[in-house]
Amino acid sequence: VSLELDHIAWLRATRTSTGEVRVGVGDDAAVVDTPGSAIVVTTDLVCDGVHFCLETTTPERVGRKALAVNLSDVAAMAARPVAAFVSLLLPQSSPASLARDVTRGMRALAAQFQVPIAGGDTNTWPGKLVINVAVVGAPDDQGPLLRSGARPGDVLLVTGQLGGSLLGHHLDFTPRVHEALTLHSRYRLHAGLDLSDGLALDLRRLVQESGCGAEVFAASVPIAAAAHRLEDDRSALQHALGDGEDFELLLAVAPDVADLIVGDQPLPVPVTAVGRCVAGSDVWLVMPDGSRKPLPELGFQHQ
Amino acid sequence: VSLELDHIAWLRATRTSTGEVRVGVGDDAAVVDTPGSAIVVTTDLVCDGVHFCLETTTPERVGRKALAVNLSDVAAMAARPVAAFVSLLLPQSSPASLARDVTRGMRALAAQFQVPIAGGDTNTWPGKLVINVAVVGAPDDQGPLLRSGARPGDVLLVTGQLGGSLLGHHLDFTPRVHEALTLHSRYRLHAGLDLSDGLALDLRRLVQESGCGAEVFAASVPIAAAAHRLEDDRSALQHALGDGEDFELLLAVAPDVADLIVGDQPLPVPVTAVGRCVAGSDVWLVMPDGSRKPLPELGFQHQ
Repeated sequence: VSLELDHIAWLRATRTSTGEVRVGVGDDAAVVDTPGSAIVVTTDLVCDGVHFCLETTTPERVGRKALAVNLSDVAAMAARPVAAFVSLLLPQSSPASLARDVTRGMRALAAQFQVPIAGGDTNTWPGKLVINVAVVGAPDDQGPLLRSGARPGDVLLVTGQLGGSLLGHHLDFTPRVHEALTLHSRYRLHAGLDLSDGLALDLRRLVQESGCGAEVFAASVPIAAAAHRLEDDRSALQHALGDGEDFELLLAVAPDVADLIVGDQPLPVPVTAVGRCVAGSDVWLVMPDGSRKPLPELGFQHQ
Repeated sequence: VSLELDHIAWLRATRTSTGEVRVGVGDDAAVVDTPGSAIVVTTDLVCDGVHFCLETTTPERVGRKALAVNLSDVAAMAARPVAAFVSLLLPQSSPASLARDVTRGMRALAAQFQVPIAGGDTNTWPGKLVINVAVVGAPDDQGPLLRSGARPGDVLLVTGQLGGSLLGHHLDFTPRVHEALTLHSRYRLHAGLDLSDGLALDLRRLVQESGCGAEVFAASVPIAAAAHRLEDDRSALQHALGDGEDFELLLAVAPDVADLIVGDQPLPVPVTAVGRCVAGSDVWLVMPDGSRKPLPELGFQHQ
């Protein structure tokens, strides 16, 4: 992981100006200006033994998730997924059923979201299964939703409930594509991302890109039932803040817009106000008694 | 390889209709209609031990080639590459220099073609190096150049010389982006692809998509010096027909257009008429004495 973070830091430090790329490394997806319109592009690589384990997870679920995480990234840009591209690197010794089952799992989700799998690359090798998925998305008329638009005073909203994803949600989650498009078309959103690495870590990313700080109200965080079911030395709140793989949306909106959304509840999942953006760059956890402490550095550190 | 071809055949046999995807599996890249314009998207995965060997090839050259093959695919659609997306899967034990050197090789080529590397994904694992590159391209006003537009009577043109790529060209080739854009803007092209798996195999793909056959004139095939230098039991012509990784363009144009292009020689590399499209579905090699035989089934079979 250190090698990985080192390389990402090096990539950022040495990147050069990027012409038609409006938003590159540092958001959920890149925004690329093509002659007629802007598109968003996201890509994600997963491999057996790190991101999933074929010994304990069916190939269908692996394929589904490999696509789902990309759809979640496209949702985080408030864009509509338009096409997916799948590269498979298959173990030479695998049965033909492996590739087919991975593809079936992917296609079922692709059909649900009407995203054609438009191309890809199939290879074999002596190593373990590797899957790369890239998805192209089209933003709506308001353009893509970035991480960088939050400002002090904004209210922070999350969809759904957080924590305990490991008990199953990390494989079965529904990418919040429709939810993001609904909210973006009806309300003015300032910033957003999808919660892949935990609220504590992803919120830091959002406020860092936006140049502000934040407060999270401990009593307001919507905690998933699964977070309570995990029996270890962490509290349910700690799970909700740090488990990651929730794949819910974190949004920053003006206070009056937050009141509207929370009042309307326009989605099939709840939308909850969990905090607000503040001046400065620190991120705080506000306890029920009103005291505040730095938000614990929980979260799953990867790109 | 059989597993790979089986899966590709299964993918094609079981694919469903594709909505906004005008051209999916079966061309050099997919054509995707976004709200404002059509884009082309290509993706290619390469791994250590199969597509390259880190023991004998520098990481810079590996990175360069991983991008170059995608630029070649975009060129084959007569599109301008707009942005590249790079997923790296790094061996845990690799030094930080590996990822950096791969990236440096890629960036040098990206800068040469003014293609920003707009995003990607970086991961580590216990296995060998895997690189996936996806490139988005923008077709010009005439739209993308497909494989399917050739018709009987068309003349077949190739850029550059063919064969012996293994001696170095397969790493150092220049993707024919500028050449494709120049030809596509000045002349009416019917069909085209890039020669990745050898003229014999790639020509079959072009005529199959176009629904015609072809004749190749043995005496007209431009043979690279490297094809003569390979000392084995194959003739230089056989190398030119079957070695693959030439990454030159194969084009089908009307006879009068072929005369113009061959007369004008508008590129920094030669353009040569090597055959013509014929009715039927067979592909023939026409010998200097006028006799003809089926074009040998040479070529490197992969996706």
